[in-house]
Amino acid sequence: MNIIESLRWRYATKKFDHSRILPQQKIDILTEAFNLTATSYGLQPLKLIVIKDKELQKKLKKHSWDQQQVADASHVLVFCIEKEIGENYILKHFENIKSTRNTSEEILKPFREQLIDSFKNKQEEEISTWAAKQAYLAMGNLLTVCAIEEIDACPMEGFIPEKYDELLKLNEIGLTSVLVLPVGYRAEDDMFSEFKKVRRSKNDTIITI
Amino acid sequence: MNIIESLRWRYATKKFDHSRILPQQKIDILTEAFNLTATSYGLQPLKLIVIKDKELQKKLKKHSWDQQQVADASHVLVFCIEKEIGENYILKHFENIKSTRNTSEEILKPFREQLIDSFKNKQEEEISTWAAKQAYLAMGNLLTVCAIEEIDACPMEGFIPEKYDELLKLNEIGLTSVLVLPVGYRAEDDMFSEFKKVRRSKNDTIITI
Repeated sequence: MNIIESLRWRYATKKFDHSRILPQQKIDILTEAFNLTATSYGLQPLKLIVIKDKELQKKLKKHSWDQQQVADASHVLVFCIEKEIGENYILKHFENIKSTRNTSEEILKPFREQLIDSFKNKQEEEISTWAAKQAYLAMGNLLTVCAIEEIDACPMEGFIPEKYDELLKLNEIGLTSVLVLPVGYRAEDDMFSEFKKVRRSKNDTIITI
Repeated sequence: MNIIESLRWRYATKKFDHSRILPQQKIDILTEAFNLTATSYGLQPLKLIVIKDKELQKKLKKHSWDQQQVADASHVLVFCIEKEIGENYILKHFENIKSTRNTSEEILKPFREQLIDSFKNKQEEEISTWAAKQAYLAMGNLLTVCAIEEIDACPMEGFIPEKYDELLKLNEIGLTSVLVLPVGYRAEDDMFSEFKKVRRSKNDTIITI
């Protein structure tokens, strides 16, 4: 399939085949792709929780508007944002640049100071919205990677983050959940897989200047 | 290249070869992929402006922290959100579902009413943040499509939306700009293309349960 055919093949899977489990090699592709996502300033204010525990998935389903996909999927990916993006976090990022690229302190210093300053002046909510947008970017990347790898997926905003955070003990590790992505294989009788894609006309969504 | 190799190949291009223009077939892939992006409730509160006018690009560059990529890229894509997501917009969406899938009024009605209600209760800012997140999702998709198609790109939050909106007369058509993506071909001497990727360790960003 070319990329457009892959993007047409994908759909928000409503019913997973609960008997089929993705091979670890596919999960490794997804986690690697997640980590390679481009993010604002390269800061990666994100973590991905990979769940393959059916008992836990059943519990999470209750906090996901009862959507069966969370229980039935091979794996459930939970996109989380870091709650503390401050000076320490940014310093660590620049240490990483320095050790990866051997960049001189002279070059890094002004960027680092500017970034620390800019985050100091932001409200907590502004930072969490900024981080959440990066999670959407990562989700956009992973949905396309899923399509290419013929992994079925169902992107979800419909869940209760507080309940996920509690069950997964995310507060203890400085995270909060923002998006959920059950992945696996579509059930043969998921009628949604046959539905025509509903999209606005390109005449309406694309403007060429 | 497999998908991971493609994602490693891509980088935020700092210098484009201004003499090279992407073939229309590549632009068609990007616009089609944009339109196929999954969005919340399938509402697609987005439009993409495709600019290939060098004079306009020079003007936009001034409002993009003077980043030369905006002037030099083959094309500049501007991701916009719809400013009015209300009853009329949602009604149109359900008309589209009905005509595309032949879904019965009986099935559509409760979903439509619930969605209209839910948007009526949202503040304007809540809706624009929701829409902006969908733009990030579309950007995440397109960055990966660019990587697969070997199109160089530089995702940008660093521009002045008000100035873009003014120059592109976006207010007149109910849009506001949220993200910019110059695309084209990297210059042979863009030293950033040789830099090692800086990423957090997967031990730090991936948690398996």
